[in-house]
Amino acid sequence: MSKTPVTVLGLGDMGTALARALLEGGHPTTVWNRTAAKAEALATEGALTAATAGEAVAASRLVVVCLLDYDSVRQVLSPLGEALAGRTVVNLTNGTPRQARDLAAWAAGHGAEYIDGGIMAVPPMIGTPAAFLLYSGSPAAFAAHRSVLDLFGESHHLGEDHGRAPLYDLALLSAMYGMFSGVLHAYALVRSDGVAAGDVAPLLGRWLTAMSGAVDGYAQRIDSGDHATGVVSTIAMQSAAFGNFTGSARDQGISPELIAPIGALMARRVAAGHGHEDLTGLVELLTA
Amino acid sequence: MSKTPVTVLGLGDMGTALARALLEGGHPTTVWNRTAAKAEALATEGALTAATAGEAVAASRLVVVCLLDYDSVRQVLSPLGEALAGRTVVNLTNGTPRQARDLAAWAAGHGAEYIDGGIMAVPPMIGTPAAFLLYSGSPAAFAAHRSVLDLFGESHHLGEDHGRAPLYDLALLSAMYGMFSGVLHAYALVRSDGVAAGDVAPLLGRWLTAMSGAVDGYAQRIDSGDHATGVVSTIAMQSAAFGNFTGSARDQGISPELIAPIGALMARRVAAGHGHEDLTGLVELLTA
Repeated sequence: MSKTPVTVLGLGDMGTALARALLEGGHPTTVWNRTAAKAEALATEGALTAATAGEAVAASRLVVVCLLDYDSVRQVLSPLGEALAGRTVVNLTNGTPRQARDLAAWAAGHGAEYIDGGIMAVPPMIGTPAAFLLYSGSPAAFAAHRSVLDLFGESHHLGEDHGRAPLYDLALLSAMYGMFSGVLHAYALVRSDGVAAGDVAPLLGRWLTAMSGAVDGYAQRIDSGDHATGVVSTIAMQSAAFGNFTGSARDQGISPELIAPIGALMARRVAAGHGHEDLTGLVELLTA
Repeated sequence: MSKTPVTVLGLGDMGTALARALLEGGHPTTVWNRTAAKAEALATEGALTAATAGEAVAASRLVVVCLLDYDSVRQVLSPLGEALAGRTVVNLTNGTPRQARDLAAWAAGHGAEYIDGGIMAVPPMIGTPAAFLLYSGSPAAFAAHRSVLDLFGESHHLGEDHGRAPLYDLALLSAMYGMFSGVLHAYALVRSDGVAAGDVAPLLGRWLTAMSGAVDGYAQRIDSGDHATGVVSTIAMQSAAFGNFTGSARDQGISPELIAPIGALMARRVAAGHGHEDLTGLVELLTA
């Protein structure tokens, strides 16, 4: 039995990796990109190339979209209108929950099933066990196409609300950017004192892996609202020591800008009389 | 043969944990704290209590110091002066490389061996395999006392320069604060959309652990100065998508302050013509 035909709209590095995973999975794969040159390599690997987005959509009932941003998605999909009726659009373009919900409403208005997704991987990881992808939208549509989506990486369906996948995607990526902010500060600091980043890297990787274990306990505190019971290291203690971070940065001639905001938040939380809390008390200042 | 007597100055949660590890290791342990009440529990566990810091120092040739900050260390040690001659001071108080080097010079002037240390653990982890400690200063003094120090956790000697241990300590902790900044932002974001932190925690922990693997490649780029060869995800691409982070935060009514600085740095690096680089190019802006 032949496999489900799939269309991929958008052939940046990520769209190309997705199309390649589909081809390797044996799916008839139709590709389209605004600049056609990007389809050429995939054509030699067996992809069908479409001259227009409309032609590409007509080729498959499952349409995977991976463009630069939601503005691009709107520009590509809007002219297609009713041609989308009866098809399933899986949009893996980076965006916000609001953008996903708006697009889902638009798609529903045109008779299309819509699944929003977030890719927790860089293109070289697509199709490997290291990749995982987040999806939200119709459980039935997800179930119908799950075997195809699993070709990209491990699939996680997060519920019917289309905003969930981009919400989780943004949450995970913003946590990663926080970690990378800290790592870049750490490397700038050691370099300023004549130490190679590579000398610190093994201990740093080990330390971050160990400390990432804190996410579970932090989640419990935040969900319960109890930031104070059984605290090992209070905000007050941490705030008192934080001057060493900004102070050492200035001693060494580097900018503390990547790590300074959490120090400022700690000081505010202490000043507001919450110095006895765990670090999680700071979320209350972010949402105030 | 009886074990080396050890003195511990400072009995906050961490100093108490250190003293307890020494007692459990069978060392005659003399403790002192500015407010004597904190020594009482340890006395019932076998610690010898000293009425003054001078008396405590007189009891052992190995003196472990764990106070609030270097100002406290100076206040406690300065009056002792020549009483420190011939002893080894292991200072585990949080501080900066400059503070450690200054104190080392002072100790040398009083005939004491000096080792500076950083504790990569919270007090409950002391004496467990999860704890590791960083030391710098005389290799001979470290070697002489290593078996004692190993009671606290896994010992890493980072060289003769006394500033190394606090440098690494600050680097690792600042990376952790970056990661926690991102985690707190992530939890504030999902909570603002009605999602429990605990629902996101498993994927978040897994994602951060996976992404912490980037520290090795980042170190190579920073040490080589080559931020541009073989980049999978350029600063320009990441900067273009970063608006989703600040935008979603504003949509959801939360402050983006904890993750905003890296977005601002990305924009500056792109504007300076380095958009083709990997994220590591940002360190050049921190040290400029």
